[in-house]
Amino acid sequence: MTGLPLSIDQIESHNAARREALQDDYDSLGRQLSRRGQDIETIKSKVAAFSVAVPSWGAGRGGTRFAKFPIPGEPTNIHEKLEDCAVVQQLCRITPRVSPHFPWDRVEDYQALKEEAGALGLGFDAVNSNTFQDQPGQAQSYRSGSLTATDKAVRDQAVAHNIECIEIGRQLGSRALTVWIGDGTNFPGQQDLSASLDRYLDSAAQIYAALPDSWRMLLEHKMFEPAFYSTVISDWGSSILAANELGPKAQCLVDLGHHAPNVNIEQIVARLHRFGKLGGFHFNDSKYGDDDLDTGSINPHQLFLVFNELVEAERNPRDGFNPAYMIDQSHNVTDPIESMLSSAEAIAAAYVKALLVDREALHEAQAANDVMMAFQALRRAYRTDVTPILAMARAEAGGAIDVLDLYRDAGWRERKTQERKAVGLGAGIV
Amino acid sequence: MTGLPLSIDQIESHNAARREALQDDYDSLGRQLSRRGQDIETIKSKVAAFSVAVPSWGAGRGGTRFAKFPIPGEPTNIHEKLEDCAVVQQLCRITPRVSPHFPWDRVEDYQALKEEAGALGLGFDAVNSNTFQDQPGQAQSYRSGSLTATDKAVRDQAVAHNIECIEIGRQLGSRALTVWIGDGTNFPGQQDLSASLDRYLDSAAQIYAALPDSWRMLLEHKMFEPAFYSTVISDWGSSILAANELGPKAQCLVDLGHHAPNVNIEQIVARLHRFGKLGGFHFNDSKYGDDDLDTGSINPHQLFLVFNELVEAERNPRDGFNPAYMIDQSHNVTDPIESMLSSAEAIAAAYVKALLVDREALHEAQAANDVMMAFQALRRAYRTDVTPILAMARAEAGGAIDVLDLYRDAGWRERKTQERKAVGLGAGIV
Amino acid sequence: MTGLPLSIDQIESHNAARREALQDDYDSLGRQLSRRGQDIETIKSKVAAFSVAVPSWGAGRGGTRFAKFPIPGEPTNIHEKLEDCAVVQQLCRITPRVSPHFPWDRVEDYQALKEEAGALGLGFDAVNSNTFQDQPGQAQSYRSGSLTATDKAVRDQAVAHNIECIEIGRQLGSRALTVWIGDGTNFPGQQDLSASLDRYLDSAAQIYAALPDSWRMLLEHKMFEPAFYSTVISDWGSSILAANELGPKAQCLVDLGHHAPNVNIEQIVARLHRFGKLGGFHFNDSKYGDDDLDTGSINPHQLFLVFNELVEAERNPRDGFNPAYMIDQSHNVTDPIESMLSSAEAIAAAYVKALLVDREALHEAQAANDVMMAFQALRRAYRTDVTPILAMARAEAGGAIDVLDLYRDAGWRERKTQERKAVGLGAGIV
Amino acid sequence: MTGLPLSIDQIESHNAARREALQDDYDSLGRQLSRRGQDIETIKSKVAAFSVAVPSWGAGRGGTRFAKFPIPGEPTNIHEKLEDCAVVQQLCRITPRVSPHFPWDRVEDYQALKEEAGALGLGFDAVNSNTFQDQPGQAQSYRSGSLTATDKAVRDQAVAHNIECIEIGRQLGSRALTVWIGDGTNFPGQQDLSASLDRYLDSAAQIYAALPDSWRMLLEHKMFEPAFYSTVISDWGSSILAANELGPKAQCLVDLGHHAPNVNIEQIVARLHRFGKLGGFHFNDSKYGDDDLDTGSINPHQLFLVFNELVEAERNPRDGFNPAYMIDQSHNVTDPIESMLSSAEAIAAAYVKALLVDREALHEAQAANDVMMAFQALRRAYRTDVTPILAMARAEAGGAIDVLDLYRDAGWRERKTQERKAVGLGAGIV
Repeated sequence: MTGLPLSIDQIESHNAARREALQDDYDSLGRQLSRRGQDIETIKSKVAAFSVAVPSWGAGRGGTRFAKFPIPGEPTNIHEKLEDCAVVQQLCRITPRVSPHFPWDRVEDYQALKEEAGALGLGFDAVNSNTFQDQPGQAQSYRSGSLTATDKAVRDQAVAHNIECIEIGRQLGSRALTVWIGDGTNFPGQQDLSASLDRYLDSAAQIYAALPDSWRMLLEHKMFEPAFYSTVISDWGSSILAANELGPKAQCLVDLGHHAPNVNIEQIVARLHRFGKLGGFHFNDSKYGDDDLDTGSINPHQLFLVFNELVEAERNPRDGFNPAYMIDQSHNVTDPIESMLSSAEAIAAAYVKALLVDREALHEAQAANDVMMAFQALRRAYRTDVTPILAMARAEAGGAIDVLDLYRDAGWRERKTQERKAVGLGAGIV
Repeated sequence: MTGLPLSIDQIESHNAARREALQDDYDSLGRQLSRRGQDIETIKSKVAAFSVAVPSWGAGRGGTRFAKFPIPGEPTNIHEKLEDCAVVQQLCRITPRVSPHFPWDRVEDYQALKEEAGALGLGFDAVNSNTFQDQPGQAQSYRSGSLTATDKAVRDQAVAHNIECIEIGRQLGSRALTVWIGDGTNFPGQQDLSASLDRYLDSAAQIYAALPDSWRMLLEHKMFEPAFYSTVISDWGSSILAANELGPKAQCLVDLGHHAPNVNIEQIVARLHRFGKLGGFHFNDSKYGDDDLDTGSINPHQLFLVFNELVEAERNPRDGFNPAYMIDQSHNVTDPIESMLSSAEAIAAAYVKALLVDREALHEAQAANDVMMAFQALRRAYRTDVTPILAMARAEAGGAIDVLDLYRDAGWRERKTQERKAVGLGAGIV
Repeated sequence: MTGLPLSIDQIESHNAARREALQDDYDSLGRQLSRRGQDIETIKSKVAAFSVAVPSWGAGRGGTRFAKFPIPGEPTNIHEKLEDCAVVQQLCRITPRVSPHFPWDRVEDYQALKEEAGALGLGFDAVNSNTFQDQPGQAQSYRSGSLTATDKAVRDQAVAHNIECIEIGRQLGSRALTVWIGDGTNFPGQQDLSASLDRYLDSAAQIYAALPDSWRMLLEHKMFEPAFYSTVISDWGSSILAANELGPKAQCLVDLGHHAPNVNIEQIVARLHRFGKLGGFHFNDSKYGDDDLDTGSINPHQLFLVFNELVEAERNPRDGFNPAYMIDQSHNVTDPIESMLSSAEAIAAAYVKALLVDREALHEAQAANDVMMAFQALRRAYRTDVTPILAMARAEAGGAIDVLDLYRDAGWRERKTQERKAVGLGAGIV
Repeated sequence: MTGLPLSIDQIESHNAARREALQDDYDSLGRQLSRRGQDIETIKSKVAAFSVAVPSWGAGRGGTRFAKFPIPGEPTNIHEKLEDCAVVQQLCRITPRVSPHFPWDRVEDYQALKEEAGALGLGFDAVNSNTFQDQPGQAQSYRSGSLTATDKAVRDQAVAHNIECIEIGRQLGSRALTVWIGDGTNFPGQQDLSASLDRYLDSAAQIYAALPDSWRMLLEHKMFEPAFYSTVISDWGSSILAANELGPKAQCLVDLGHHAPNVNIEQIVARLHRFGKLGGFHFNDSKYGDDDLDTGSINPHQLFLVFNELVEAERNPRDGFNPAYMIDQSHNVTDPIESMLSSAEAIAAAYVKALLVDREALHEAQAANDVMMAFQALRRAYRTDVTPILAMARAEAGGAIDVLDLYRDAGWRERKTQERKAVGLGAGIV
């Protein structure tokens, strides 16, 4: 890993200047936790073992149908994206894997790509197929759907693309295929709602059949967008019933922004685990719809409550517990590297807070219907400032105590602005 | 049925005065439908075969936690409620069954109650249990839940109550038990979300075991209220997974007001049918939450789209198609009889409009991805004024052409105001 | 107007083949309305006087951030868009004006453009400015806002663009400027929420100062998108307070898809009228967010209730009643001409149904708190099938009885597919 | 204040046992804040000056239309409620005022009530009128509205009741009248939406005219419930326009649970302040509707963002800044004293976190459009655990370091269970 993008010396001197203050905060928190019967070192070691993937496309600026505003130095191919993801991983130490997207990340030689990533300290996570856009030269159009299209030729093309993604993923060392489709309708009557699902199940079964034994197929549901009247896999109910029909390797993926307003997402997580189908997460945050905002920026308490279920699930694994974690955000107004750094920290913080819950006290209060004390068990953990634990774990793993400060000091984006070609205007589709 | 509540003569003279105008409208619509390739008489005969149950509690005024405003002449016991339901049925001819609720409708002699109803032209529909309120003298409180309570004695009491309801229903000629529980939490952490469902499944299995072979157990989900953080059976996903665990006699009941904002309910209907678990409906309308407004008063197009799925399902019954229909509304500001009359008509109108959809044209357009023509097939049916078909079917069955006019002319409520004892103020629970 | 796009002969023969059936339906409805005390001819004459504008951009296919799927024969410049709008107007006869958008519709000679439109039977409606996208060669970027940007140079550019739009509009015969900005934030803290509004008011005042006396400035609010945490003009409250500060020529524009879930839009319409600031509408429909679906396709009853307020407002004009009506939809899956034809009919139908409300009966029931009869007054009007009135008015004005049938028979799109250059793939911005 | 309900000795020994640990946490936080350029003592002194009122009705258990489950020892009159509020204030030291509600808290001698409260360490806050329920013996019913009723006699009664509340408030030392009405409709057409507002404004003006010079009239809006189709004062737009019409003493009150889903409440706060009408708050939390859950239990980050606006507003007071703060919750499943203690702490914590925001850094980042650093300025403050500051301020004022622990140790509820008469079953209104 001599190819790490940032200077190790710079990180070390950054940390040296902050270590005394961090040690004071860490020790203080350690004493407080000790008074609460918890060992800060044990918690820290769990952070050290935690990781979350980042998506290759997350390294670029996102946009809306109205416009995209690119930034100078933005990556424009998978090689540059890997480089940016390596910066994230070098600084925060909990994002060691990149999730690629095809055909966006298509290259000639995937073995070479795997080695290129490895040299940057990165591996590959779940592969993502794309049947919601048409590509130049494509034989069939997805304008009327993909895996659920009425035209068999379209479905066949979409199935073949997913199978090709599995093949690429195999070369990259992936172990999962994530399937999200935009299929649905914009008008009542546009399609038969049941027949669309039948076609989905038929297509998905063909993909499932091509899945290696050690792989998982992660089904991602979404309430709406790009379809605005109905969506074939719109909710966790549709998703789990489909996963049940497909078989044990099919599981459900929860994107935090893909639900109806007000829905209790942490209970959906609990339900999916209860029925053996919790496959993983796309982390982000939202206020209105699939806003794809930075994780924890809008409702960090909800993120904590999700991790509270995950920690409970890990302790009570029923049919196993092995969710795939990924950040999936649209970085419309920030430097994507900064957003991924900030979000990775928010995710780890939610996890640590969930670890801090006194589960014995919680379960006792639940059993006794002592509502206030059950709530306080969560509240006490949530209000703890776990920053020192995260920073210490990061520093011990070679990362930076203050990831954003160091990233800015390093001048990475300015350097890349010189090196990389400019991105054109995203004119928007209104 | 000499015991019908309203004068048959009055209905006949009411109809006589309106028949000529109705015939003109009916004939005109018949010619229009004929030009569209449809036979009005066939449609009318389907209306004649259609029915929807009314709930005994619907005969009284509803209220909110803030207040209830009773009306003079309101019924205060099951006998008076049956009388009012008989008025509804006599006028509209499509509400021949009453759904009772226990312990609200408890009597000494259920055989006598069945005969009393029969004399009024009524039978009994699904029985409803109540474990969301405490009753005077009850051994255990439902304050911390019922079927999902942590305390086994509470769960046992709730299970026993449901089994008692089955027994009562057997005597009344019912064939279904509807189970709705308010169990859930108001605070994060209040209960273990998975363990609550485990307890639900265990309790429900005991009830299921007591179900006669010819019966169905209808599971009713609801997003929120009375629980405001989480609800154990909160959505169709939880409901169908529970029904699957319980067995073939367990099915899901859809209340139109029990969903998250913006959710596509007609697709939920299609999904439940697709997976063999569409048990029935509680019809009402809502704008914000479980508002329990009059069916079709807020979004009649959605009601039509639900019936469009039902008509599709009937033509493509997969594992059978036999949903139980019921009105379930809270009549806070109207005379309940008038609301039930108006709502029964709205439901029948939605059904007739769904029957009017040119399904061949629809399916062709769907197959060809001709979005506009698929939508127009629905739109053409929806915009048709089916009032003459409903009125004609009603008149031919002995009901009134204009149900509200006749009801008012009959002076029923004024008479009952003299006869019945006054209801006290509902002070509300804030 | 010898330049009308479709053959008048073809329309006439189309109508001739359908006139007898239409006459039957029209006469039948006339008799029914007469029995209800209403004169069908009077209603028809109001339809003949009704109109709604179409937006130039509505002639093209829309899309989402994920993809746009163009159709063959799509217009790619303002001249082709005018042609397509002329087809809509020739067939439906109630869309005589086009609302242009700058810089999208920029030409060298606006006088010539006005004449070109006139020859097609079209005039121009409100001009729309665009400060939510960057244009090639633009001095300042709108990446951090436009009228509310912290950088004065950006605000100045945005103000100047709006003033240029007024100047263009003057040449085109417009009388209104519609101002919608996407300004807002994606993160808590990103901007000072009050200072942003201060800057908006300051910028808007400069535009207002450039407004000719006979013009109106229409402020369009929107809850979210493209900004996903906060939007400067997010709701009707912000909009009307801004309009009040600006002065009498500033009014509020209601887009039906720009509100929070569950909001009672018809009451917002009533409030804006009550306080003298109801400026106009962007008609469309939505199920989830700003879905920009075809008007009336999802919730036609809501559209009727909006028109019910408009008819009330017209009868009780307080400070005047003169709203600007426009269709504003994103035609992602249909031929835009067909969607505009279908939507114009849906709008006119809602208007006619509102005219059919027996307002004397309604007001009497309201005064007497006779809830059911007040509701029935609306319901009776809503369920009426007003298709024959619309078709008759259209045919008498030279339009087609069945607009979609005739459009398809005319082969317009096929012809344009030969003549127009192809549109490239819209790759989407994720 | 010899009449304080709990033993001062007990509080002192409770604190003594916890002081060392608290001092460690406080000192550690002090050092951390000092490194961030902030002085913990200054912050603590602001907490000491902060207060929030509690409502008299909050001392009792709440419920839903389905049921109310009382607890043993619940207060049943204003005297017992004051006692319970005094417990809250003695322990947390930031709830020195009680907000009474009439006629619920009606007594013979208000001067005596004021003295009774004073002896318990309490004063009185805003008075609340009640025109959403009928009282036994009342001349007119509010079944069809109160301040907006079509019947002048009803409006007169409602106005007179509000004026009586002012008179009572004068005797109690209040300085504000809070007006919330449930007036609205359950059916389209039920009332004229504009005329209802006209009547509201007319009635409210009569109340306003009776307001003493030093008083404020706080208008409280609410989206829905008890009315489920339209509500007269449904949103902040209606509220502020009404307040503007009434005059300078009329201001708007924000209840955190009275908004549409997804709405940005902190921006509403900023808007009300910007236009000089921010009157106060009813604090609670919600997930679905007006759930009236414990403040900060669902979305504490939103509460922080609200206080972030309040701290900004205090620094930039435009037309003054003096909001009235009150807790307004429905304690359906907890001991109300515990919920008020927990909620008061949550409110104070949000305030302290908002004080911790480095506003210079924030404003610089905003000016520079440095989105990430602006967000981080908030995030750094939010993630700080301010518990030690709150506890230290409380202990120094004579309150308890751990309010819930001490309350339970004190055995207050058990004692009151012996002393107070039992509350009957709340049977619910379905």
